[in-house]
Amino acid sequence: MLSRVVRIFETFGPDATALRVSDIARRTGLHVATASRLVDELVSYGWLQRDADRRIRIGVRIWELASRASPTLSLREAAMPFMEDLHAVVGQHTQLGVLEGREVLFVERLSAPGAVVNLTRIAGRLPLHASSSGLVLLAHAPAEFQDEMLASPLTAFTASTVADPARLRSLLADIRRNGFAYCEGFFDNEATGIAVPLRGPGGEVVAALSVIVPIDGDAHPQIPALRAAARGISRAMGAENSSH
Amino acid sequence: MLSRVVRIFETFGPDATALRVSDIARRTGLHVATASRLVDELVSYGWLQRDADRRIRIGVRIWELASRASPTLSLREAAMPFMEDLHAVVGQHTQLGVLEGREVLFVERLSAPGAVVNLTRIAGRLPLHASSSGLVLLAHAPAEFQDEMLASPLTAFTASTVADPARLRSLLADIRRNGFAYCEGFFDNEATGIAVPLRGPGGEVVAALSVIVPIDGDAHPQIPALRAAARGISRAMGAENSSH
Repeated sequence: MLSRVVRIFETFGPDATALRVSDIARRTGLHVATASRLVDELVSYGWLQRDADRRIRIGVRIWELASRASPTLSLREAAMPFMEDLHAVVGQHTQLGVLEGREVLFVERLSAPGAVVNLTRIAGRLPLHASSSGLVLLAHAPAEFQDEMLASPLTAFTASTVADPARLRSLLADIRRNGFAYCEGFFDNEATGIAVPLRGPGGEVVAALSVIVPIDGDAHPQIPALRAAARGISRAMGAENSSH
Repeated sequence: MLSRVVRIFETFGPDATALRVSDIARRTGLHVATASRLVDELVSYGWLQRDADRRIRIGVRIWELASRASPTLSLREAAMPFMEDLHAVVGQHTQLGVLEGREVLFVERLSAPGAVVNLTRIAGRLPLHASSSGLVLLAHAPAEFQDEMLASPLTAFTASTVADPARLRSLLADIRRNGFAYCEGFFDNEATGIAVPLRGPGGEVVAALSVIVPIDGDAHPQIPALRAAARGISRAMGAENSSH
């Protein structure tokens, strides 16, 4: 039964924020009567909510339950003051990503109107090998996980995406040595992503902090501000040694 | 069965972010074997996660599912650029709250180190009658809901809390007429809260934007900046007429 509830929640997304029960039934493969009964029960707990026009949305209550004790909330609260300062100085997209499954999941983003195109969004994902945040997380992931990722098909999103396993392995070593990932047009031809690792209390890499800037021009001068912010956030999370 | 899953999630909170299965069983009243089986199943879906020390936490996956299609995410994304500007100008706590049940639920907060004490937190709640955000939301709620709230016991958190139904009804009328709530020490003796309504596409009040400032000194000069930000956010959400 729980698997059906999970399937119902999986049908919602950024492009499907309000669904009719018949849509939910079709997308989950559940009978309309089953979907309708489960939706009613979820609405009664506030986990889903019903619009005036009877369309179903994700409930505010489940967001509250998932957020108030979430490990990402303490990460976000430690990071936010530093992200705001960085955002003010760099004037471009600033984001916070964690490793989730085989992708990077963005848990926070500060954007400026008129900043370069940015394909990420809060609670959105990007592939590990094609984003600066993902590469930082992959560079610090266990060797077995790296081997598995390098052995799987790697999509080239642009001519600059590093999709060759040997070159990618060497890039990961560079990222660990340099302490940052600098990715010109890896995912989008117009954008450069720069990311640095954030460390938890045990010194382990728990997240990546990144900025997205226009590809025209050298963004290396942004790196010291990004690294300084990462040290501050890592220290706020209790990392004893926040150097890379 | 779903009610048991809901009870498991309800046991987690800001002060209980990591629990043992035995704690979950005790807090939910479930048998340890039942709790253990449900926790295992929820871990398999990523809705809960198990630490290295076998303690259970809220899973990142349920946060992602709850966030990516959440009605509060679009509100938050519309509000955030304006909130950042307001936060930079006012230099104090800036927050975004929605009506959830009989309380105000804060879906976003920007804080400054060294700003006045603030008892709210993201995904935290405050009573409607004792917070500026709550009063704005209550002032614009349906009359039946207001009657119900005014008829229920109203806690006085400080000597300034308006806990008398007749005075509260008159205060709500003032808030509607003035377009803002100005609350000196209603919830905490050291803080003044100021809140204004945010409107959705149909002109209905969907949220409250507030700042929390130290009680010493007149904070009325902050009101124009707060109202200007509220107009910008309401327009970004598609409100045709964002005046109050």
